[in-house]
This record gives sequence, structure tokens and C-alpha cells, in this order.
Amino acid sequence: MKKHYKEELGDLREMVLRMGGLAERMTHLAIQALAERRKELLSEVTAMESQVNRLHIDIDEACLEMIALRQPTARDLRFITAAMKINTDMERIGDQAINIIESAEFLLTVPPVKPLIDIPRMADIAKEMLRDALDAFVHGNDRLAYETIKKDDQVDQLKDQVFRELLTYMMSDAGTIERSLKLILVSRHLERIADHATNICEDVIFMTKGKDIRHMEPLP
Amino acid sequence: MKKHYKEELGDLREMVLRMGGLAERMTHLAIQALAERRKELLSEVTAMESQVNRLHIDIDEACLEMIALRQPTARDLRFITAAMKINTDMERIGDQAINIIESAEFLLTVPPVKPLIDIPRMADIAKEMLRDALDAFVHGNDRLAYETIKKDDQVDQLKDQVFRELLTYMMSDAGTIERSLKLILVSRHLERIADHATNICEDVIFMTKGKDIRHMEPLP
Repeated sequence: MKKHYKEELGDLREMVLRMGGLAERMTHLAIQALAERRKELLSEVTAMESQVNRLHIDIDEACLEMIALRQPTARDLRFITAAMKINTDMERIGDQAINIIESAEFLLTVPPVKPLIDIPRMADIAKEMLRDALDAFVHGNDRLAYETIKKDDQVDQLKDQVFRELLTYMMSDAGTIERSLKLILVSRHLERIADHATNICEDVIFMTKGKDIRHMEPLP
Repeated sequence: MKKHYKEELGDLREMVLRMGGLAERMTHLAIQALAERRKELLSEVTAMESQVNRLHIDIDEACLEMIALRQPTARDLRFITAAMKINTDMERIGDQAINIIESAEFLLTVPPVKPLIDIPRMADIAKEMLRDALDAFVHGNDRLAYETIKKDDQVDQLKDQVFRELLTYMMSDAGTIERSLKLILVSRHLERIADHATNICEDVIFMTKGKDIRHMEPLP
């Protein structure tokens, strides 16, 4: 144990940000591949998954070690346990990007149902939410966390819009059913990414305030 | 702080089991409501959500307090952090049951597409996985955790089967599209419940072995 405690906390923060960057990039590339029909991007996303998995393990180990050996104060303990929870959410964002890739692999072999507009918009909001959630985490900014949670409604609205629109396509032309279904699933994966960003925000608020807002309504 | 440390650990174990029991029951009732078309069960599930949310907060607080005040040994620390992670997964199983309820609310207002067979079977396996995962947690039984993870494949196969079968219905009769879509979403929610049970097993293995198998393949 050669490093100083402050340095270890800084390393942890840095690992969380690196993992967040990877999760965001995977989401971005998966949707770009789909919207611009660029098959070559799919393998880039798959390649990033092993980096995410490695970081997932490293962050958990670093947190456990710090708790066991450093006997952190209440505030640092909240920071470290928040990092463990955020770690899980980021890893699952990576899983969702892989799920999108799996739908994209099929969708890029068939003609497009329609130009994609709402799905890339959903992805943009979800990525922004993730970025802001991690920013709120490293700066202990609960205000930003609250603001970010509010954006989840936009993602849910777009998800419903995607569903209704694709339902119309499916009803009027049975030939579009399988493709439309896959697009609906993609929108659900994006919804889940936004949900994970929301979870991260809730952990940040719990960390900064020391109170649990996760099941309180309404948000201020 | 009047309680003994051992007693606190016992209380934590008991809270985790209680929450697991609620999550399993919510899943059971949601699918029963759907399969047997019993609308009156839906509100039972909704009512259980607030209990799950309360326990979610209580378990997290109990874990943080024990880590902060008891300076647990390496093994107990792994147990307590595993409980925190498992807590999150159980809460999300409750969320999935609520998602199923939302689809069921629509499905019980329209005639059934077909008698449900594979979906209740998926639910049975997912519930059994959750039960065994929690059993593995309280007994530190990594063997059982490994066995339980293997069942996830059965759930995935059933999910694909549900998808293919309902796709056939949708293609041959556009009048079934919306109902079939909702059923496909229900099967996805069940898949996620099984995924959460798998996550719990991985946490148990990490806890008992002190090694991280989450991203290693293949399982023994």
C-alpha cells in the first residue's frame, strides 16, 4: 500500500469517469451504426465491452480495498459506496449498447423502415444525462443531479412516440413487422440507459445530502 | 447502538430475505393476473411496491451504518457490500413486476391472443432463480449460485420462442399486433428479472470466493 489515501480517491474518481466515457461512447457508436447504416462501427462497440468489464472489476476491487484498509469517514464512505453502485449502472449501460448492436446487426441486413429521427434524439438525451450524472458525481453537485433526473421524462415520451409510430407502420404493412419490432426494442434499450443515468443521479443525491430521495415524489 | 453486531448481521440477512420474498411474490401475482385474467390481483402488486421501496432504503442505511461503525472484517465486509448490491437488484425486480402490471392492464381489456404457456414458464424459472440466488446468499453457497446462473439460458430460449411465435401471429393477423407486442414486452421484463437473479448469484460468488467471475467465460 504505497499510495496516499487522497491519491486513491482521485484514482477511483478517474476510473469512474473513464468507464462513463466508454459507456457513453458505446451508446453513441451503436446508434450511429444504426442511423447511418455503418456496419463497420458495430465491431468497435463489441471491442469496447471487454474494457468496460475490466474496469467494472477494478473499480469494485478498489472500493472494497479502500473501505477495508482506510476506514473512510462518513462522507468518503458515501462517496466510495456511491462509486460501487454507479459502477454497476455503467456496466449495464454497456450491456444495453451491446443489446442495441444485436438488433442493429439484423436491421443493417434489411431495408430501413423509415429514416431514424426520434431514436437518435433519445440517444442524445440519454448520453447527455449520463455525462451530467457523472459530472454531478465528481463535483458532488446535487442540483445538477436533480436537473438531470427531470430529463428522463423526455426519453419516456420519445419512447412512447416511437412505439406509436412503429405500430402504425406494422399495422399498415405486415412486411415491416419484424424490423419495426427490433426498432421498438432499440428504443427500450435507450430508455434503460436513461434509467441507469437516473439511478446514478439518485446515488449522487444520496451521497451529497445523506438522505435517500429514491422513493420520494415529487422531485423539487 | 444497543444491538450486538451479530444481531445486526442477522437482521440484515432477514431484511434481504423479506425483500426477496416480496419481489418474488410481485412477479408471481403479476403473471398470475395476466395468465388467469384476474384484474383484481393487479392492485395487490401495486400495493407491494411501497414495501419494497421502504426496505430498499432500510437495507442501504443498515449496510452503511454497519460499515461505518463496526469496521467489519474482510469477509463480513464482502457480505455487507453484497447485500447492498443484491438490494438494488431486488428493487429492480419489483420495478419489472410493475412494468408487467402496466402491460397487463391493457391486455386484460382485450381478448387474449392465445393461452399463455411459455410466459408463465419463464416466470416460474425466474422466480426459482431468485429464490435459489437468495438461498445461496444467506448460506454462502457458491455451488448453488453457479447452478442457478446456468438456468438463465432456459429463460433466454423461452424468450426467443415467445418472440418467434408472436411474430407469426402478428404477421398473419394485423389485429393481434398491439396485443402481441405487449406480450413480447412482458417476456422481456421476465428476462430482466432472471438477469437480476443472475447478478445476485455473481455477487454471491464474489462474496464467497473473493474473486470476480462476472466477466469470465465459460462457467464451470
